[in-house]
Amino acid sequence: MSTSIEQITSPTLLVDEQKCRANIRRMAQKARNKNLGFRPHFKTHQSADIGEWFRDEGTTGITVSSVKMAVYFANHGWDDITIAFPVNIRELNTINELAKDITLTLLLSDSDVPEALNKGLETNVYAFIEIDTGSNRTGFKVTDADTIDNLLEELEQLKYITWKGFYSHPGHSYSARSKEEILKIHSDVTDQVTALRNRYGSSAQPFTICIGDTPCCSVAEDFSSIDQISPGNFVFYDLVQVQIGSCNPKDIAVALACPVVAKYPFRNQIIVHGGAIHLSKDVFSSETTSHFGLPVFLENGKWDEPIPGAQIASVSQEHGVISCPDKELNRIKYGDLIGILPVHSCLTADLMAGYETFEGDKLNHIRTNRKNS
Amino acid sequence: MSTSIEQITSPTLLVDEQKCRANIRRMAQKARNKNLGFRPHFKTHQSADIGEWFRDEGTTGITVSSVKMAVYFANHGWDDITIAFPVNIRELNTINELAKDITLTLLLSDSDVPEALNKGLETNVYAFIEIDTGSNRTGFKVTDADTIDNLLEELEQLKYITWKGFYSHPGHSYSARSKEEILKIHSDVTDQVTALRNRYGSSAQPFTICIGDTPCCSVAEDFSSIDQISPGNFVFYDLVQVQIGSCNPKDIAVALACPVVAKYPFRNQIIVHGGAIHLSKDVFSSETTSHFGLPVFLENGKWDEPIPGAQIASVSQEHGVISCPDKELNRIKYGDLIGILPVHSCLTADLMAGYETFEGDKLNHIRTNRKNS
Repeated sequence: MSTSIEQITSPTLLVDEQKCRANIRRMAQKARNKNLGFRPHFKTHQSADIGEWFRDEGTTGITVSSVKMAVYFANHGWDDITIAFPVNIRELNTINELAKDITLTLLLSDSDVPEALNKGLETNVYAFIEIDTGSNRTGFKVTDADTIDNLLEELEQLKYITWKGFYSHPGHSYSARSKEEILKIHSDVTDQVTALRNRYGSSAQPFTICIGDTPCCSVAEDFSSIDQISPGNFVFYDLVQVQIGSCNPKDIAVALACPVVAKYPFRNQIIVHGGAIHLSKDVFSSETTSHFGLPVFLENGKWDEPIPGAQIASVSQEHGVISCPDKELNRIKYGDLIGILPVHSCLTADLMAGYETFEGDKLNHIRTNRKNS
Repeated sequence: MSTSIEQITSPTLLVDEQKCRANIRRMAQKARNKNLGFRPHFKTHQSADIGEWFRDEGTTGITVSSVKMAVYFANHGWDDITIAFPVNIRELNTINELAKDITLTLLLSDSDVPEALNKGLETNVYAFIEIDTGSNRTGFKVTDADTIDNLLEELEQLKYITWKGFYSHPGHSYSARSKEEILKIHSDVTDQVTALRNRYGSSAQPFTICIGDTPCCSVAEDFSSIDQISPGNFVFYDLVQVQIGSCNPKDIAVALACPVVAKYPFRNQIIVHGGAIHLSKDVFSSETTSHFGLPVFLENGKWDEPIPGAQIASVSQEHGVISCPDKELNRIKYGDLIGILPVHSCLTADLMAGYETFEGDKLNHIRTNRKNS
């Protein structure tokens, strides 16, 4: 263990800066190579410090998932932000303030929104029409052509809303369990946005098509009809992304460092401080197993492969229960630190509200930042 | 809706002060009536402001689940605190600082701990031996009499640790689904602690037996052999506690107020801003249904019964998807606020990091407090 890690006293989210920067660089280069706009989603890391690692790779425009997050990143010098979440009309005042300072793009996901929004706006915003390409969460179906036509007509009349194009988060790619399955979903999504391209491509106004899920953006090579990508989770990846087929275990860039607080060798269990308020209760589920994370040894200022046969069997608010075979359990002592690779890094990062590098640098997060705001 | 609720713009955790104070009063009175020490667990609310509502009912000693939480409440004037979590030896410096200022009680859950702890302590602490009465998480089994005997002998020799008694969190009561099932578990727990009472009762030193789960403390009437109770969740209760049989739906004292950001009547769904980073991903699961919370109307500064037939069908990071029958869906408009009764209030409260009353008062939380610390 490096000296700085050794000093950790309570659950701490470690970020492997090298892995994280490599994840960012790989995706930024892919976008460049394919001539795609790169508007990474910052909802996973929610950190101005980690945002700077994106800037180092040439990122200028970003995506976020709430008005609050847009304000935070605008305060940290980002001046071109898409809020990839249905417009929350109750936040109109803040939207107006933001739109005066930065280039703001919103998402229209319900026909009632444009009029209500335009009525309250005081300055111009851009707007994507959100397309539901199969996740069945928010947006309009491509097949709902009349509604989209009507929306486009309406937008032409509205003073403060400039139509930017179509946005989709193909969240159903999370149901994939192999690269082949991801590519099948991506191909279907591409067919849908190509239909939009064909239908509206002859309009006088050029428009942008943006898609934003980590599995498709990580694995696909064909981005025809797509102009921009806005994946988010790839910055850290996690065990679910490994399961989906988006990445390798070695790409996972965060691990929760947890103190060992009890050992029960007779039932092959170790208890760590690190539970649902640190990891979240997102469960990893496959045909053969179900767990809340995979433990790793923290050695020489890094972590390696998951400990063979070990897993987080259960979590309560503060407790993590690790089941562990004898051989590995014997290597772990009361008071040691164990790392845990998260099932879903977005939720773990949100709960932990800050990061620490192997060098002991503390990185901020929208929640820690409150302290200094 | 009351004026202050109407001004809410983003997901906000409402606390019904009347219900919450009634929950506190009921449990405090029950403890008094049964001549039990009342050491409520503050891990659920984690709020100094709500702590004052306990003080109003005569509470002087409390229970928490981490050293950090103990520091927070000590800074807010609580001077008799039990940390009901296995000793994390890495936090020894903070434990020493705390123990100089307040009456600090720790939990011994592993035989390796007393010696390691005593070696690093600079001042006296009290210690419960943690008993695993059936939750199979942490502590010693009552049947493991030799280990407990040895521990007690060891503790007599240790300079800085004063044995206080036995502590158990019968977390297996969460598997109950009726008052009868809770009482069956409570009766078994009582048998176990009675065995401890009988075995060690003849020792020269008086000792305390403390148990701390909301289901048993809410429902049981017979607390023979038990000296103290330390339930926590009862302060707010939640849908899981209703399912267990600990409370009635009307006792639930928190609801997440969420803006409606899209409506999809054709599939009977409403989208709210309120997802996994607000509610947590704790799922309510029964033989007939599975959901992430139950929606309520917020009217006249209060909420009533859950909306018939409606539930939170899924959550992603920021989105909550409410499935809702036509009749009720027609009452809900884009831009409205909907309340959500949480599946597990402990996790929702931890994520929301602050509360708002119907009168618009903002109540603090250990996480919000960082701002001012």
